[in-house]
Amino acid sequence: MDERNDMDQPLTDELRELYRRFDEHALSPLWTQLADVMTDVPKSRAVPFLWRWADLLPLAERSGELVPVGRGGERRAIALANPGLDGRPFATPTIWAAIQYLGPHETAPEHRHSQNAFRFVVEGEGVWTVVNGDPVAMRRGDFLLTPGWNFHGHHNETDQPMAWIDGLDVPLSDYIDVGFFEFGTERVTDYSTPDISRAERLWAHPGLRPLSGLNRHVNSPIAAYRWEYTDRAVAAQLELEAEGHPATVEQGHAAIRYSNPTNGGDVMSTLRAEFHRLREGTQTPSRREVGSSVWQVFDGRGEIVVADNVWKVEKGDLVVVPSWEPWELRAETQLDLFRFSDAPVIERLNFERTFVEGRER
Amino acid sequence: MDERNDMDQPLTDELRELYRRFDEHALSPLWTQLADVMTDVPKSRAVPFLWRWADLLPLAERSGELVPVGRGGERRAIALANPGLDGRPFATPTIWAAIQYLGPHETAPEHRHSQNAFRFVVEGEGVWTVVNGDPVAMRRGDFLLTPGWNFHGHHNETDQPMAWIDGLDVPLSDYIDVGFFEFGTERVTDYSTPDISRAERLWAHPGLRPLSGLNRHVNSPIAAYRWEYTDRAVAAQLELEAEGHPATVEQGHAAIRYSNPTNGGDVMSTLRAEFHRLREGTQTPSRREVGSSVWQVFDGRGEIVVADNVWKVEKGDLVVVPSWEPWELRAETQLDLFRFSDAPVIERLNFERTFVEGRER
Amino acid sequence: MDERNDMDQPLTDELRELYRRFDEHALSPLWTQLADVMTDVPKSRAVPFLWRWADLLPLAERSGELVPVGRGGERRAIALANPGLDGRPFATPTIWAAIQYLGPHETAPEHRHSQNAFRFVVEGEGVWTVVNGDPVAMRRGDFLLTPGWNFHGHHNETDQPMAWIDGLDVPLSDYIDVGFFEFGTERVTDYSTPDISRAERLWAHPGLRPLSGLNRHVNSPIAAYRWEYTDRAVAAQLELEAEGHPATVEQGHAAIRYSNPTNGGDVMSTLRAEFHRLREGTQTPSRREVGSSVWQVFDGRGEIVVADNVWKVEKGDLVVVPSWEPWELRAETQLDLFRFSDAPVIERLNFERTFVEGRER
Amino acid sequence: MDERNDMDQPLTDELRELYRRFDEHALSPLWTQLADVMTDVPKSRAVPFLWRWADLLPLAERSGELVPVGRGGERRAIALANPGLDGRPFATPTIWAAIQYLGPHETAPEHRHSQNAFRFVVEGEGVWTVVNGDPVAMRRGDFLLTPGWNFHGHHNETDQPMAWIDGLDVPLSDYIDVGFFEFGTERVTDYSTPDISRAERLWAHPGLRPLSGLNRHVNSPIAAYRWEYTDRAVAAQLELEAEGHPATVEQGHAAIRYSNPTNGGDVMSTLRAEFHRLREGTQTPSRREVGSSVWQVFDGRGEIVVADNVWKVEKGDLVVVPSWEPWELRAETQLDLFRFSDAPVIERLNFERTFVEGRER
Repeated sequence: MDERNDMDQPLTDELRELYRRFDEHALSPLWTQLADVMTDVPKSRAVPFLWRWADLLPLAERSGELVPVGRGGERRAIALANPGLDGRPFATPTIWAAIQYLGPHETAPEHRHSQNAFRFVVEGEGVWTVVNGDPVAMRRGDFLLTPGWNFHGHHNETDQPMAWIDGLDVPLSDYIDVGFFEFGTERVTDYSTPDISRAERLWAHPGLRPLSGLNRHVNSPIAAYRWEYTDRAVAAQLELEAEGHPATVEQGHAAIRYSNPTNGGDVMSTLRAEFHRLREGTQTPSRREVGSSVWQVFDGRGEIVVADNVWKVEKGDLVVVPSWEPWELRAETQLDLFRFSDAPVIERLNFERTFVEGRER
Repeated sequence: MDERNDMDQPLTDELRELYRRFDEHALSPLWTQLADVMTDVPKSRAVPFLWRWADLLPLAERSGELVPVGRGGERRAIALANPGLDGRPFATPTIWAAIQYLGPHETAPEHRHSQNAFRFVVEGEGVWTVVNGDPVAMRRGDFLLTPGWNFHGHHNETDQPMAWIDGLDVPLSDYIDVGFFEFGTERVTDYSTPDISRAERLWAHPGLRPLSGLNRHVNSPIAAYRWEYTDRAVAAQLELEAEGHPATVEQGHAAIRYSNPTNGGDVMSTLRAEFHRLREGTQTPSRREVGSSVWQVFDGRGEIVVADNVWKVEKGDLVVVPSWEPWELRAETQLDLFRFSDAPVIERLNFERTFVEGRER
Repeated sequence: MDERNDMDQPLTDELRELYRRFDEHALSPLWTQLADVMTDVPKSRAVPFLWRWADLLPLAERSGELVPVGRGGERRAIALANPGLDGRPFATPTIWAAIQYLGPHETAPEHRHSQNAFRFVVEGEGVWTVVNGDPVAMRRGDFLLTPGWNFHGHHNETDQPMAWIDGLDVPLSDYIDVGFFEFGTERVTDYSTPDISRAERLWAHPGLRPLSGLNRHVNSPIAAYRWEYTDRAVAAQLELEAEGHPATVEQGHAAIRYSNPTNGGDVMSTLRAEFHRLREGTQTPSRREVGSSVWQVFDGRGEIVVADNVWKVEKGDLVVVPSWEPWELRAETQLDLFRFSDAPVIERLNFERTFVEGRER
Repeated sequence: MDERNDMDQPLTDELRELYRRFDEHALSPLWTQLADVMTDVPKSRAVPFLWRWADLLPLAERSGELVPVGRGGERRAIALANPGLDGRPFATPTIWAAIQYLGPHETAPEHRHSQNAFRFVVEGEGVWTVVNGDPVAMRRGDFLLTPGWNFHGHHNETDQPMAWIDGLDVPLSDYIDVGFFEFGTERVTDYSTPDISRAERLWAHPGLRPLSGLNRHVNSPIAAYRWEYTDRAVAAQLELEAEGHPATVEQGHAAIRYSNPTNGGDVMSTLRAEFHRLREGTQTPSRREVGSSVWQVFDGRGEIVVADNVWKVEKGDLVVVPSWEPWELRAETQLDLFRFSDAPVIERLNFERTFVEGRER
C-alpha cells in the first residue's frame, strides 16, 4: 500500500458514516486517495504501445470496402486506441492519432472544428486537402496543417487509394471541454490540383514574410511542409557534423522542428511536430520527458525502446511514449522518423522536465 | 441519434468482423463516435453544482474529530466531487476545490508537488502556511499562493480550529500526466507567526519591484493578497462608477484579477483568480465562456444562475460552472464573490471564446 | 593618432582630388574616421556632471519672478545642459532633466506630445498634474507619470511656490525624429484637488488588476507612485537583510524599480526609474553600464563617484552618469536616491552590457 | 516665429542676467526653445536625397586604385553623408549606408563590433564574407547579415573587383553611446569558397528549425537570404494577385520582409530590411512613416517621389527618406527595390505612426 494513503487508521463505524455523508454531499476526502491523484512522478494510465503499419493498412483498406465516406461519419479514420485508456480512441490522454484512408475519386466533406489537426504522409500521393478553399497536395514525406477552425475536406483525384496519418488534440479538447464543430459543404470547394498551395506560395520561403501577412498568427500559415525541404535540412545536419561542425542534437542524430515562421514557435498551439534522422548504427541515450508523444517510422529499420519494450520497427510503424516513460532509438540502417507530441501544452503551462541519462540537466 | 454518428449503415457480419479486428489491434473507428468526441459546442461531463457552506463546515469539523492530520494523508482536505465526474474528487475536469480543516495546534506537514495551489479564507484566522520557510498568515479575505514545487505546510497556533478552501490544478495535472511529488519535513520549518510574510514585504508594494528580483517569475512572488487591498480595490471601482468614471466591468459590477506583478499575467500558470463585488440589486447579463470555474460567496446574499439552476447563495457557498454553461449573478444585498478558473490554460492554448447576452463579440 | 585611422598614407594630390569628389557627391570615407564612429568602448560626448540643488532652486525662483508661464513657452522648466553636448538642453544624449517651478495659483496649460515624461518631487507639495482630465497630487517623494500622447497640465493651488524635476526622452526623440506635439486647453480641465488620482484608485493596489483594464498597456497606468509605498518597500529590504534574508541588491543597498503592473516592465517605453536606499556607511562596488542615467539625492549625505569625480552630495543634488563611465555610491548617513535612465532603450535594442568591479558577469 | 517660442517678452537686462547665470551653471530654459525640441510633427535635419550608382561606382573604383584596404581603415567603404547632417557619414540620424569595394584577391581583415551590419549586393559576385569563421558567398540579389559582436571579414577570390552596399546602425549607436569594437585576425579565418554558408545549411529551410538551435536568438541566424528565394517570393505574390487572391500589399505591389525565423521579427534588433516588386505602371499612394529609410533600386526603372522631389531612378540608385517625409513609388517598367530602415527601433520604443493617403488608419 502506498505510504501516502496509509493512515494506519481502522475504518470504524463512525468513519464509515462520515464517508457516507461525504458521498451524499458530493464530497471526497483527500487523505484516502492522495497517492492516486498526486504521484511521485507522472504515472500515465496510457501504456507504451506499438501499432504496425502492416496491420493498419489492410484494416484501412478493408474499411474502404465496407464503410462509405461522407457527411455524418465525415472521415474514414481509424484511431489508435491506447489499451490503457478504456477503449477510447485516444493514443495518449492528449493526442489523437489515426490512419485515414480515401479510395479513388472519393471526397471527405468539408467541416471545421476548434481542434487542431495535421496530416503526415508515409506513402502514396494523389489526395488534396482543401483548407479554407486552398487545395494542398499530399505526397510522401509531407506534413500538412489544418489548425483549429479552418474549413477542410479531402478528395482523391486518382485511381489509387491513399492512406496517411492524422494527428489531433481531440483527447485534450474533449477533456478540458473546448471543442466547437461546424459542417461545411458536402463537396470540397475547389477541386483544382496544384502542385503547391497558395499558402505555401505566400509563406514557404526561408526567412521571408509577406508584408501583407504581418498580423498575429497563432498557428503557422504554412499549409504544408514539403518532404524536399525536410530531407535537405536533416541531411545537411549530418553533413555538417561529418565536416566537424556543431549541427546535430547529438552524435549521429539530426532533427528539425516544424515551426511557425511568424513567431518561431510550434506549428500549432497544442501540437509539436519534428522529423529525426539517425545515422546507421546510432543509439540515443535514454530520455524521459513530461508529456506524451507518438513516433512513426518514415524510412529504414531499427529499434524503439520504451520502458521495458524493445520494438523492431520499420516503415509506417507507430509507437506511443506516455509521459515520463524512458525511451531510446537504435538505428539498424539510416533511420528516419516523424514525431509529434503535446509538448506545447506542457511548456505553455510550465510543467516541462527532461531527464537524459548520463547528462546533468 | 446524432446526425454525425448516423452512417445509415446496417451492422453487417462483415462490418462486425472488421470492428472485432479493430478491437484486436487496439484501434477504434472515428465514424461511429465522432459526435461524442467532437461536439458542436463544449458539452462537459461535469455538471453545474452547488455545495453549501452549511453542509461543508460540519463535515469538516467531524473529520477533525475522526481523522488525524499528518504524514501520509498529508492534509485534512475534503474535495468537491462533481457528480458528473464518476465520483472522482474533481470539481471540474481541470480544477480541484476542497475545504481544508486544521484543529487547534495541529500541523499539516511540509511537502511539495508540481501542481499549483492556492488558499482562500472565507472565515477565521490563526493558521500560518509556511512556503519554502516563509510563514504566511491566513485571515478572512486573504488569497494565498503555493505555486508548483514550493515546499509548504500549515500549522494552527490558536485554540480554535480553522477552515478554508484549497484550489489546485490536480485534475488537469492528473489527466495530462505532469505531476511530481516530494515529502518535506514532518513539522513546518518555521513556527514564527509574523503578520505578513517576507514575500509580501519584498513584493506587495503597488508597482514596485525589488531590484534583487528581476529574474524570470513564472508564477507570482506575492505569497498572500490581503483582504485590505482587495476590499479597497473593488470599493474604489464602485465609487469611481458612482462619480461617473469608467471603472467597473459593467454597471454595478466591480472586479479585480489577482495578478503576477512581474508580468501582469495570472498568478499561476494554470489558475486564474478574481474577486467580484456587486452593488445591491445588480444583475449581470448571461455569459458563456470556454473553460470551467468555481465561485465562492464571500459576503452578502443573492442568486447564482447556471443553466437551469437558480441557486440562492450566502457566505461560503460554492458553485461550479462547467465550460460553456451560461451563468449570471443577482445581488440581493451587496454581494462579494471569489472566483477561480482554468482560464490561463484555455487562453495559453488559444481556445478562448466568450458569449455575452446582448453584446456583439 | 588612433591605430584605426592611421592608414600610413600620405595625402597625395590624387587622394585630395578623390576626397573633393566625395564631398561634391555627399559622400564620406570610412577609413579616415572609423575610430570616431566605432570606438573600442562607448565614449560619450556627454560628461559626468553635478548640478547642486542650492544653485538650481534660486535660479528657478528668479525665473518665477521674471518669466511668466503660459501658452507658448508652456512650462517654466530649466534644463540641465550637459557641458559636453554643445549647449543643447540635454542632460545626456537621450535624457532631458529639468527643474520646473510653479508659483502660487499659477497654471501651466495642457498639451500633449509623443515624448514620455515623468515628475519626481524632492520637496514641497500643492501642485496637481492633470493627466487626461485626472488630477494627480504632487508631494515630496512622489514619482508621477505622463506617458506619451496624454494631455497634461499643472496648477498650483497654494500660496507657496513649488519646484520639482521633470524627466523626458526629448533628446532621443529629437535625434531619431519621432515627436508629435499638440496644444490642449489653456487652463487645466479639472481644478479639483483629490488626495489621490482616479488612476491610482483603479490601479495602485499590489498585484490587483481591474477587470475593466485588461487591454494592452504599453506604459504604466499608475499615475503616481506614492512616497509612502516606496519608503516602505526599501525599508523592508533593509530589515529583511538585517534579519538574514536575501532582499537587497548587495549588502546595505536596497532598491526598487518603478514598474508597469500590466507587464512587469519599465514604467514607460524609453525611461527607467528606480529608488535606492543605502545604509549609513555603505559603499557600492564600481559599476559600468551601457546607457546613461541621472541620480538625484532625495535624503541624506554621501558621495557619488563618477570616473575621476568624487562629489559630496546632499538633498536635491543631481548627477549625470554618461554611458560606460564607472560610478559608485558612498553613504555618509542613510542615503536615499532617485535614479532614472535610458535603460529600456538600451535593453530593447539589445545593447546592454554591465561591468561590476570584483564580479564575474 | 513659432508660436511656442514666442513669449511676447522683451529681453530685459534682468532676464539677460538670468540667462547668463543659466549658462554659468550649465542650464538652459525650455521656454525659448520648446519649438525646436518638440515639433508639431517630426522634422528631421536629414533631407531627402538621391545618390546615383553611376556616381558611386566610379568613385569606389577610384578609391580601389588609391586607397589600400587593411588593418586600421578596415574597410574600403564610402558612406552616404546626408547633406542635412553636418557632413557626418550618416545617411539618416540612425542609419549608415555605404558602398564597399574590394579589388581582386584583396582581404578586408576581421573585426567585430556592437553595431549590427548587413550587405546587399546589387551586382557582381566573387567575394565571401566570413562570419565567425563561416564563409558566406556574396552574389547579386543576396542580403547578408553580420549582427552585432560577430567577427567578420571579406575576401575577393576573383580577378574582378566587387562592390556592394553596407547598412549599419552606426549613427544610432554613436548617438546613444553603445558601441564596442575589437580587432580580429588580419586575414580571414577561412578562405574556402562554398556556394552557401554553414548557417544557411542549418537554418535556411522554410519553417524548419534545427533541434540543436532552440536557444534564444536575438538576431536572425540566417547568414544570407539568397536572391533565388526573394525573387520567387515576390513573383508568387504578383501571380497570386493575378489569380484573384489576396497576397500583395496593394494592387501591383508585392513585398517581403526579411525575418528572424526564431521569432518572426526583424532580422536584427535595430534594422529592418524588405524587398519590393512593383508591376509595370504601378503607383503607390503617398505614405508618411515615423522613422527613416533607404531605398536602393535593384532592377527596372521608375520614379521615387520624396516630399517635393521626383527622382527618376535605375539600378543601384539610392534614395533616403527621412522620418515623416511623404514618399511614393512609380514603376515605369517592372521595378525591384531593396529597402532598409530603423523601424525596429521606432516600434520597440512605441513611437510608430503611419499615414497613407486615402486610407483611414
